[in-house]
Amino acid sequence: MIATILPSTQAFALSMKMSINNLFYPRGLVVIGSASKGKLGHELLRNISDGGFKNAFAVNPRAQGAFSIPGYPTVTEINHPVDLAIIVSPPHTLPEVLEDCGRANVGSAVIITAGYSEVGNHSDEQQLLEIAQEHGIRFVGPNCAGIINTSLNLYPTLETRPPPGGVALVSQSGALGGIFLAMAKEHELGVSKFVSYGNAADLTEVDFIKYFASDQETRVVVVYIESVTDGRGFMRAMVECSEQKPIVIIKAGRTRSGGRATLSHTGSMAGSDAVYDAVIRQCGALRAHTVEEAFDVCVGFISLPRIEGHRIAIVTNSGGPGVLAADRAEEVCLDVARPSLKLSDELSFFLPSHCALKNPFDLTVEGTEKGYCETLLAVLKEYDMAIVLNIAPPYLESVQLARGICDAADQTGKPTAISFMPGPWVDDGINYAKERGIPNFSSAERAVAALAAMANYYNRKLSTYPWMEAIPKERMNLVHQGCIVEPEAMSFLLENGFPVPDYRFSTTEEEALEGCRDLGYPVVMKVVARDILHKSDYKGVILNIENDNEVRSAYNSIMRIGEEREFQGVVIYPMITGAVEVLMGISRDPQFGPVVAFGLGGIYTEIFRDITLRVAPIDVTTAMEMVQEIDASPILQGARGGDACDLSALADTLVKLSRMPFRYPNVAEVDLNPVFSLPQGAVIGDVRVILGPIT
Amino acid sequence: MIATILPSTQAFALSMKMSINNLFYPRGLVVIGSASKGKLGHELLRNISDGGFKNAFAVNPRAQGAFSIPGYPTVTEINHPVDLAIIVSPPHTLPEVLEDCGRANVGSAVIITAGYSEVGNHSDEQQLLEIAQEHGIRFVGPNCAGIINTSLNLYPTLETRPPPGGVALVSQSGALGGIFLAMAKEHELGVSKFVSYGNAADLTEVDFIKYFASDQETRVVVVYIESVTDGRGFMRAMVECSEQKPIVIIKAGRTRSGGRATLSHTGSMAGSDAVYDAVIRQCGALRAHTVEEAFDVCVGFISLPRIEGHRIAIVTNSGGPGVLAADRAEEVCLDVARPSLKLSDELSFFLPSHCALKNPFDLTVEGTEKGYCETLLAVLKEYDMAIVLNIAPPYLESVQLARGICDAADQTGKPTAISFMPGPWVDDGINYAKERGIPNFSSAERAVAALAAMANYYNRKLSTYPWMEAIPKERMNLVHQGCIVEPEAMSFLLENGFPVPDYRFSTTEEEALEGCRDLGYPVVMKVVARDILHKSDYKGVILNIENDNEVRSAYNSIMRIGEEREFQGVVIYPMITGAVEVLMGISRDPQFGPVVAFGLGGIYTEIFRDITLRVAPIDVTTAMEMVQEIDASPILQGARGGDACDLSALADTLVKLSRMPFRYPNVAEVDLNPVFSLPQGAVIGDVRVILGPIT
Repeated sequence: MIATILPSTQAFALSMKMSINNLFYPRGLVVIGSASKGKLGHELLRNISDGGFKNAFAVNPRAQGAFSIPGYPTVTEINHPVDLAIIVSPPHTLPEVLEDCGRANVGSAVIITAGYSEVGNHSDEQQLLEIAQEHGIRFVGPNCAGIINTSLNLYPTLETRPPPGGVALVSQSGALGGIFLAMAKEHELGVSKFVSYGNAADLTEVDFIKYFASDQETRVVVVYIESVTDGRGFMRAMVECSEQKPIVIIKAGRTRSGGRATLSHTGSMAGSDAVYDAVIRQCGALRAHTVEEAFDVCVGFISLPRIEGHRIAIVTNSGGPGVLAADRAEEVCLDVARPSLKLSDELSFFLPSHCALKNPFDLTVEGTEKGYCETLLAVLKEYDMAIVLNIAPPYLESVQLARGICDAADQTGKPTAISFMPGPWVDDGINYAKERGIPNFSSAERAVAALAAMANYYNRKLSTYPWMEAIPKERMNLVHQGCIVEPEAMSFLLENGFPVPDYRFSTTEEEALEGCRDLGYPVVMKVVARDILHKSDYKGVILNIENDNEVRSAYNSIMRIGEEREFQGVVIYPMITGAVEVLMGISRDPQFGPVVAFGLGGIYTEIFRDITLRVAPIDVTTAMEMVQEIDASPILQGARGGDACDLSALADTLVKLSRMPFRYPNVAEVDLNPVFSLPQGAVIGDVRVILGPIT
Repeated sequence: MIATILPSTQAFALSMKMSINNLFYPRGLVVIGSASKGKLGHELLRNISDGGFKNAFAVNPRAQGAFSIPGYPTVTEINHPVDLAIIVSPPHTLPEVLEDCGRANVGSAVIITAGYSEVGNHSDEQQLLEIAQEHGIRFVGPNCAGIINTSLNLYPTLETRPPPGGVALVSQSGALGGIFLAMAKEHELGVSKFVSYGNAADLTEVDFIKYFASDQETRVVVVYIESVTDGRGFMRAMVECSEQKPIVIIKAGRTRSGGRATLSHTGSMAGSDAVYDAVIRQCGALRAHTVEEAFDVCVGFISLPRIEGHRIAIVTNSGGPGVLAADRAEEVCLDVARPSLKLSDELSFFLPSHCALKNPFDLTVEGTEKGYCETLLAVLKEYDMAIVLNIAPPYLESVQLARGICDAADQTGKPTAISFMPGPWVDDGINYAKERGIPNFSSAERAVAALAAMANYYNRKLSTYPWMEAIPKERMNLVHQGCIVEPEAMSFLLENGFPVPDYRFSTTEEEALEGCRDLGYPVVMKVVARDILHKSDYKGVILNIENDNEVRSAYNSIMRIGEEREFQGVVIYPMITGAVEVLMGISRDPQFGPVVAFGLGGIYTEIFRDITLRVAPIDVTTAMEMVQEIDASPILQGARGGDACDLSALADTLVKLSRMPFRYPNVAEVDLNPVFSLPQGAVIGDVRVILGPIT
């Protein structure tokens, strides 16, 4: 009876939630490890005591306590329910420590102790996992920096104690977490919970993202990852979260393509970082590129109401900073729209003539409380949000300006952020605004970046999740491992309903001649040889063959190229002109599995890398989105006097392609490059299929 | 005798320098305007007095002084030499105030009073200039925020008083200047001199840049501009400065193309901001996109030694932040090179095995003073610079780590910057390092951006300045205004030695037939009509015409297109295949004059905007640089199996083109798009010449 052994997904999710509840809402906690001065345990006990959590205990061989926290020799001797163990004792003691916890019914642990997989010691880490599972203990770490639950005054960590609030932070790196928490304390951003999960031997980022998705005290989730192991699980967790509240991912390693060995163009361009970009977007999450950026976005989400669109008004009392803010706003794809005629008229009614009545709205150094307030009341009628700058000369009273701004924000209910500069003489104004719920950013450029991310979250398209689908697998009998030659690949595509052109595979000059005549001139001839991957690099592609003589000469020239290699013959196609060349491909990402790519094809493919990715499979809607979002899409849509291409044909082919790695588990990578996009339909110009192990 | 009336350039430069010396090194200064509490004059006197400048006086109708500064009714009555007047009295008083200054032999003035050209009042501003010139007074402003010379304790401004040091700041906006000065004070960056030049009715950014170029107390010059009036003068000033010391330009308005009306492709893509980018680079200056960025670069130049190359070592005690720093470093084009085998060996000798021995060099949380020092000593032998991170847990002593870093930096003499986080518990370490001359940046990302800018400055190519040349003008007798049709333009190019293909202009079907046979099939036929600018948008270009029948049908179809327009005939060329299509163009920038462009041609021109610009004229070296720096250049150089193109032919044509607007003063814009780049030579595929007024 399988059903009784394997809990249902839902029951499993519930039990996971209860396990994590043990971590964050323990009835009692114990710090296991030396409590002597200068030891980590001592500092932990100090932070726990200073934080104010009452039911804390210490366990170490000397039964030493500290800061009024009592000490015991073992956990079993503690006369109070304990749900959470914080472990800092040396690695060799851990098996016994976990046994002790198990005997005392401690349901969860945070293993701060290091020296496991991060230094290559996988076997001891595996042992910890086994002992913990034996005793039903779920744990964070090892090699982590602790957890925080501000609502419970629970601070078993060495990091800064932030004020309570709505941001939950999940960090693979303790150091990164520490930076964020220190910023939260300095700038008074409230945190609900924090977990540094280190080596993630047991509980992972996936578990925590799901937990915080439904945590009532959390309004925004921030996640710092360096890598993930269960890519699709991570995706499902992000979806679960983003459907309920914003989730911001900080991912390091974004520039390098990662140096993965890959045979296809698609694979080499779909560097793992580009895949992360696609994944995060596909799951409705946001990506931040620095800790500051993530922090700013949190400040925005916590302080401001929903943003309904992308139109931003910039109100300033100094021209230059206003323009710098406008520049940045455009860079992050906000719409620094010009005001309507009606609005301009309204503004000119009460603003002096020397004020700029276009966006940015420059009130000049004479901008007053009343001026700011009236301007904002007017502009917020037609903009979705405002950033308000005050570049204050020392003699200017900033609280009054802040009041004008806050009054307008209150009355309109529209998201309004400020950037008051320079310190320290604008501090009063900043504090006043903060008390009334209007956030200040250290520069207008940072503010607009945060507002843009928020607008992207609130206005994202409602996604479908075709990549969650299961596709029935077929066992294809492809004999070759590695790469199959072009005629084989074309025949495989044909069987699967792809738009393959009429072609001939010829192994002699006479066969080639016959094939060419059959197809009708002009034709294209290409070398077929298992060991020639990049045919054009070997001059193994001859275009525009127009008559019998040219066929003979082409065949012979190609045969010579193939001489030193595994020459098998030539493949011949009709010559196609007047098409736009695009590329399609699938590759397998080590974390996220099959990924589908669409982009500009032909000689400029690798120059401009104008390519877009999705985790596969995709549906037609997503495929159409891809076709329309590459930079070169206007060309497909008929810009520059050309005919518009058949976008549906492209989208259909893309959908089909995205399902191939699921139907054929030994298809590792496929490049279709070029695909000729035509006014009616599309035709595949070249194909490369790379087979791998059966997945 | 003209020579006696017009001073020589050198003499003029000297007299300019003396005028500005009056400003920054006055024997005495006077503040003219009300000194009553609550007035600007009062605050200015406070700042001057607090700053410590001794020979200050106040002038106002009530002869009121303040803060021990004596008051007089007029400047003439002051019994001490006065070289500088700071004017804040109301606009209507200014003519008399300047007369008074003139009578008292005051050589320079700072006019803070506003209400002139910035609010559209140009006539009063012109009047100020005339009165000042009459009395030999050179002035800053009006509508400015004052000046500073820290070496003289001279602070006639309302902005923050920064500490003395090596940065000179020239700012069009007082507010922007104020932000920079407040940052300088907060972070203890020393400033030599500051000037906010406001409306620049007399002295402009050009004068100040030249002055600071040779100012002994200034080591770095920062300039904030919103616009310039004398573009080429601004360029010459930047060159003069950058040849002696770094100059950093903050320019707002970088995203928008500016919406200038322009008829050519080149013109529309050479938006004024792209021109600023080119100009700044051509003059050896650096561009900063935010005030923070400029500030960071100044900190770097002031604190660190010369940077000899682009190889950066990242040393960290936490993986994630190290990777984020590496990402940013690659983005700003630093080389995060892997260590040599020799270096890896050396490191593995003293670093624990779990440390990452590649770049970033991760010492892990166990990184010690000794570890940091030894690692840096080793890596700085093969890298040009280092950024060192310390992500400190609260219990870690940061001064020791700082000492290790400073010792290594001292011993190697290599530029080394740090980023210690998070505050406040690393403050001691930061201060220690600062005292030993090692700058701290608030994030490693900011540090690497600053280091990259410095490396770019120190390793810039020694430029020639062909745009400074004078070119003899020719008066071309082109009858048409506006745009001339293609055959006329081709003939014009031919006369000037451009690589024009053989072509025929035909006005009847029979003429066209004859022309095509003459040229030899296949040919291209295009419409000629003065009112059709974008021929392909009208389907007025027919490619690959192969026989007489096709000629007839092509001619008739083009004639029909021309029917409703000013149809003049067709132009016929031989069909060129197998070429790479590039574009070349010249346009006129309102500030900088003729600009030459080179880029990718054909249908992707406006999609990828892969284009590079220079202020014209250029020489062959610069032209070759341009040909090699576009993204698509690898295609020209024969990537992907194609033949390499004749780059010299492209460069020669580009040089020729860059001289056209000087030889022909009524040539406003020229587009050569496409130019067919061939293995031997280049051929112009299409041309558009737009005539303008004679310049």
